[in-house]
Amino acid sequence: MTTFTTLNPHRYFDPEPTQRKIASELYEAIATLPLICPHGHVDPRLLADENFSLGSPADLLIIPDHYVTRMLYSQGVRLESLGAPRGDGGDVEKDHRKIWQTFAENFFLFRGTPTGMWLNDELVSVFGVSEPLNGKTAQAIYDHIAKQLTTPEFRPRKLFERFNIEVLCTTDTASDPLDSHQAIRSSNWKAKVLPTFRPDAVVNLEAFNWRENIAALSQESKIEIKDYKSFIAALENRRAYFKQLGASATDHAALTAYTHELTDQEAKTIFARALKGHTAGDDAARFTAHILMQMARMSVEDGLVMQLHVGSFRNHNDILFDRFGSDKGGDIPVATEYTRNLHALLNKFGNDPRLTLILFTLDETTYSRELAPLAGHYPAIKLGPPWWFFDSFNGMKRYFDRVIETAGIYNTAGFNDDTRAFPSIPARHDVWRRASADWLAGLVARHIIGKDEAKEMARDMAYSLAKKTYKL
Amino acid sequence: MTTFTTLNPHRYFDPEPTQRKIASELYEAIATLPLICPHGHVDPRLLADENFSLGSPADLLIIPDHYVTRMLYSQGVRLESLGAPRGDGGDVEKDHRKIWQTFAENFFLFRGTPTGMWLNDELVSVFGVSEPLNGKTAQAIYDHIAKQLTTPEFRPRKLFERFNIEVLCTTDTASDPLDSHQAIRSSNWKAKVLPTFRPDAVVNLEAFNWRENIAALSQESKIEIKDYKSFIAALENRRAYFKQLGASATDHAALTAYTHELTDQEAKTIFARALKGHTAGDDAARFTAHILMQMARMSVEDGLVMQLHVGSFRNHNDILFDRFGSDKGGDIPVATEYTRNLHALLNKFGNDPRLTLILFTLDETTYSRELAPLAGHYPAIKLGPPWWFFDSFNGMKRYFDRVIETAGIYNTAGFNDDTRAFPSIPARHDVWRRASADWLAGLVARHIIGKDEAKEMARDMAYSLAKKTYKL
Amino acid sequence: MTTFTTLNPHRYFDPEPTQRKIASELYEAIATLPLICPHGHVDPRLLADENFSLGSPADLLIIPDHYVTRMLYSQGVRLESLGAPRGDGGDVEKDHRKIWQTFAENFFLFRGTPTGMWLNDELVSVFGVSEPLNGKTAQAIYDHIAKQLTTPEFRPRKLFERFNIEVLCTTDTASDPLDSHQAIRSSNWKAKVLPTFRPDAVVNLEAFNWRENIAALSQESKIEIKDYKSFIAALENRRAYFKQLGASATDHAALTAYTHELTDQEAKTIFARALKGHTAGDDAARFTAHILMQMARMSVEDGLVMQLHVGSFRNHNDILFDRFGSDKGGDIPVATEYTRNLHALLNKFGNDPRLTLILFTLDETTYSRELAPLAGHYPAIKLGPPWWFFDSFNGMKRYFDRVIETAGIYNTAGFNDDTRAFPSIPARHDVWRRASADWLAGLVARHIIGKDEAKEMARDMAYSLAKKTYKL
Repeated sequence: MTTFTTLNPHRYFDPEPTQRKIASELYEAIATLPLICPHGHVDPRLLADENFSLGSPADLLIIPDHYVTRMLYSQGVRLESLGAPRGDGGDVEKDHRKIWQTFAENFFLFRGTPTGMWLNDELVSVFGVSEPLNGKTAQAIYDHIAKQLTTPEFRPRKLFERFNIEVLCTTDTASDPLDSHQAIRSSNWKAKVLPTFRPDAVVNLEAFNWRENIAALSQESKIEIKDYKSFIAALENRRAYFKQLGASATDHAALTAYTHELTDQEAKTIFARALKGHTAGDDAARFTAHILMQMARMSVEDGLVMQLHVGSFRNHNDILFDRFGSDKGGDIPVATEYTRNLHALLNKFGNDPRLTLILFTLDETTYSRELAPLAGHYPAIKLGPPWWFFDSFNGMKRYFDRVIETAGIYNTAGFNDDTRAFPSIPARHDVWRRASADWLAGLVARHIIGKDEAKEMARDMAYSLAKKTYKL
Repeated sequence: MTTFTTLNPHRYFDPEPTQRKIASELYEAIATLPLICPHGHVDPRLLADENFSLGSPADLLIIPDHYVTRMLYSQGVRLESLGAPRGDGGDVEKDHRKIWQTFAENFFLFRGTPTGMWLNDELVSVFGVSEPLNGKTAQAIYDHIAKQLTTPEFRPRKLFERFNIEVLCTTDTASDPLDSHQAIRSSNWKAKVLPTFRPDAVVNLEAFNWRENIAALSQESKIEIKDYKSFIAALENRRAYFKQLGASATDHAALTAYTHELTDQEAKTIFARALKGHTAGDDAARFTAHILMQMARMSVEDGLVMQLHVGSFRNHNDILFDRFGSDKGGDIPVATEYTRNLHALLNKFGNDPRLTLILFTLDETTYSRELAPLAGHYPAIKLGPPWWFFDSFNGMKRYFDRVIETAGIYNTAGFNDDTRAFPSIPARHDVWRRASADWLAGLVARHIIGKDEAKEMARDMAYSLAKKTYKL
Repeated sequence: MTTFTTLNPHRYFDPEPTQRKIASELYEAIATLPLICPHGHVDPRLLADENFSLGSPADLLIIPDHYVTRMLYSQGVRLESLGAPRGDGGDVEKDHRKIWQTFAENFFLFRGTPTGMWLNDELVSVFGVSEPLNGKTAQAIYDHIAKQLTTPEFRPRKLFERFNIEVLCTTDTASDPLDSHQAIRSSNWKAKVLPTFRPDAVVNLEAFNWRENIAALSQESKIEIKDYKSFIAALENRRAYFKQLGASATDHAALTAYTHELTDQEAKTIFARALKGHTAGDDAARFTAHILMQMARMSVEDGLVMQLHVGSFRNHNDILFDRFGSDKGGDIPVATEYTRNLHALLNKFGNDPRLTLILFTLDETTYSRELAPLAGHYPAIKLGPPWWFFDSFNGMKRYFDRVIETAGIYNTAGFNDDTRAFPSIPARHDVWRRASADWLAGLVARHIIGKDEAKEMARDMAYSLAKKTYKL
């Protein structure tokens, strides 16, 4: 039952001694480089208040983490028993020790999974836990973590420093006033925490509460959105505001990568219909396709790096969504197409040296078929690291295998942790750094590159590529 | 020419000594566990008669095995020369020694294939053959096997016991009277041989001889099928009958995974049209989609585990199908979609703890993109093992690589051999057990899990998961 | 910075000592076998004139090689600065030393890519360069290569002999008079250089300058193409001419693998419309689908091996295409389907022992899902080696992994280099031979096949399969 092992210094490396030795040497040189976190979902409120408390072990490690709760749910553990808040305010488990016990008894489910690897690393490296986590050890470990979480060393700002984070970008809706970011900037804490402009909630005409989102955008931008033109003006206004607060990038999520430029009249008509509450047919898909073109145009003008995440069928489980809302593990990928869908955008902006467009996928078949050939040709395109389900040791191996021969490493954007689980940040970067070192060691051991070259590449992959691509 | 090597005790394991040693240790502990065979196509008549003879070596190993004949056919060997019976009763080779000679001369074609690995294992382990099989050794090996097949030790029931099969599930059409299963039950042979309810021939309105199949279903169920309502009643009747004879599961094959609930009126109208011999447009596809919903509903009620196999374009080779019928190697996979297609079924039954839905695929791209995320979320879903072309050493490696990080092993259904080739059963389980041990050894050697955890997982993968998922 | 290492004799082999030793032994036995080059794009003019000069190092290794220029372009190097000729005759860099310098300074971009591996091998093996290539060494290496290129030993015919090429097939349009091939034949140089019939420019109704291409076909065939019937006659005429000059194969490129037989009347109508300059709707796609059926029919009759390359979205980058024309790296793959698309062709000709149809893909998902099952069944089908982006060490590993278990090696067509970069031919074959030896060594080390079998297979993969499949 023991779950899991202690942290071996050679963990994740290939067992073949020659490769392992090289991997180890490459890794040692990059293990303690500062962390560049150009894309993620940490709530900036954690860092706005120097006394912010991370709560109980269950608050921190279980309740908000859909990577954890989805796996337990798939094995018959009800979300209520994990303390997930219900939309209707219905009863859920309030005893965090019980929640922790349920989690610990089921921790064996995470054997061989990245979530298991991260949690194991966090328990040992962040909290100094020395025993495996299971039903028997659950309460003692709870006590151990809970006690530490009350100490000043476990305030988020202290952890930020301990984690050696050089820069952390959050993700913020277009209408976000960025109060937390203002607070961080005006405090005497000199860390680099930057917002990222994510306008999905106003761009996607079918977004939940779209008209309320538009109203909020009007309010924050102080531009009354009454038509397509004022909508575009409000977006430009907010981009400028985000940029002023240090933003270096935008982020866009869509079901597909479809891009298409509407005529001004078409855009106006569709937007007017939406404002009246009537979207018709494929209005939303076409409008998203059009706004992606607009966003690329604005990026060319203001220099914000553009990120595009596509291919997730959100809230697939209606029953769960109705009861608990989004981000509960019910987002399931679909087959995705880039070559034809990005044709319009790339033909207009793909050759422009001012644009950086970072692509992410949930369909690994596109790595070798579409994304690497696109990134190995268009100056504007860079490939983001393996995303979501593929942010894992084997996911990274597949990514290196399928992407690098065609695109090279210099058309990739390095790593980002993409997480809302703040204490998992170092563990996630560590998996990437070890996976990179192991992959490069394989190239050296096969005499495809030399060790000096591998050292440069390891540093680029761990640190420089993310910094450069995101202009940080 | 030599084809193949003798059976090395470390076969299939990674050559790296550390990993090989761990794999070997993990394998030793599971190598002789009883075999759980929850899905397959062994003809129950073999086991109904204690004196059943397996025939000649060609009867047993070549003529009925489309894994073997398709490969020879692809290299220009005519099926007639392999003794495949023609639908029109035309002449085919009757001399089983000649058939065996042709096979032996072409056995080199199977180098590096699972069929080659299974056959080699069977020759050595089941029949004690000690020489490689090729044109020169063909007749001596034929003699050797033929002689054994006449002995009592080679009656199927004896082999069943020698193979250490704990339970074997067959696959039976909805209208099957299950006489062989009755005979096994009423004999004094106490083996566990169970039927599986497979209604494709009556559910698919475009099935060959559909109306005759419906008539047979009427007869066996003693419910006159005159409309949709009586059709459903007849299906429920037969499920109950199968269950009474020990069935624990149903099995469904379809071209796609499309599920959709028709209104009662739509279902009635389509079924009535079909009974009159006029299916129109997409009637068959829509009706299959609807019946899958009905089957899930019945599974919730009667507890039968539901299996879904999709993605095979059956009888792609019209000429061969017209001459020899189905199952001659002419079934070719197509790209498959689960996320959208299963949406209706999962939203109605996917959260219900009473349903177990086991999914199989012929499109490996769906492993990491759709199936693992679905299984890692919905309580009802479990993933079946690599199917058909992917029931192979590398197919298993890809499956572990792409599925487990997202779904964990506990959302998989262990192994099943899915075979009609009775003497290949131990060899197929052995490939799985060795592949599992090797994969787990890789995790241990990389310090991702501990050896004690790997031991538990190896046993679960070899034995417990199949038993538990299929409620055996 | 050093880019790259010297050529280690064990390069590309698995670092595990047991596997490496076997790989090395297998490789040694095939390393110096003659090269069979059944498909490629070397310009036959190089070989028609015994004094042909390969030009400067930039002429030879950079300017015409879109594998090289696309990668530099993706990182912001303008094609003009690489000397790529502009369609409008605009200024481009003329100083080949400057072009070489730019290339050398960016050579690190090719780390871990096949282009890097080939170039490194060429520099060392063909030109005897002993230093890594980078900005500092650029000019000295330029001098070294330039000097050699002026010597008689570096005339293409001498290199052809030094490379130990047994046969080289070029690719020639249907209307090509094959003057260079005539010149080679009538010279006293006895090398085997053969044409390949590639009629895309007249078959694809949407081809650039289609009507001019038809006119050229009329002229060369001496058959006035005034309707569909005379078009077919002209194609048959040219196939006969190519065959007379030694051709053993045809080659066809299409966006999809769609095959479909039009009625004679439909074919006539569509062709007549095209001659008048009006193609309507899906005329071009349907006509290509029909002509592929015709080409299979002709292959059955004249014995020419049929090659089909599908799945490339050509000239995706309109701006670059307008400025520089095609083959500049702007061809991006799309998802591809074979099972349904080839149904018509295979049902008519797939069982015919006179047809050999070699399939190539840019969608690796089709390897295990469609292509291996098709090749493992239909006598006519053979699989071509990994194509284009996948002609790489890892691309080959994926191909072996996903294809061979289902199709065996004997349903593959061995290797072809598919290159227009003449001096890269030995390096490309060497990657294949090393990758094959390494893969076979893995099978031996895992005790799946014996070493004697692996030796036969290594020779087949390096030499015999290509020769046999292409009837050379």
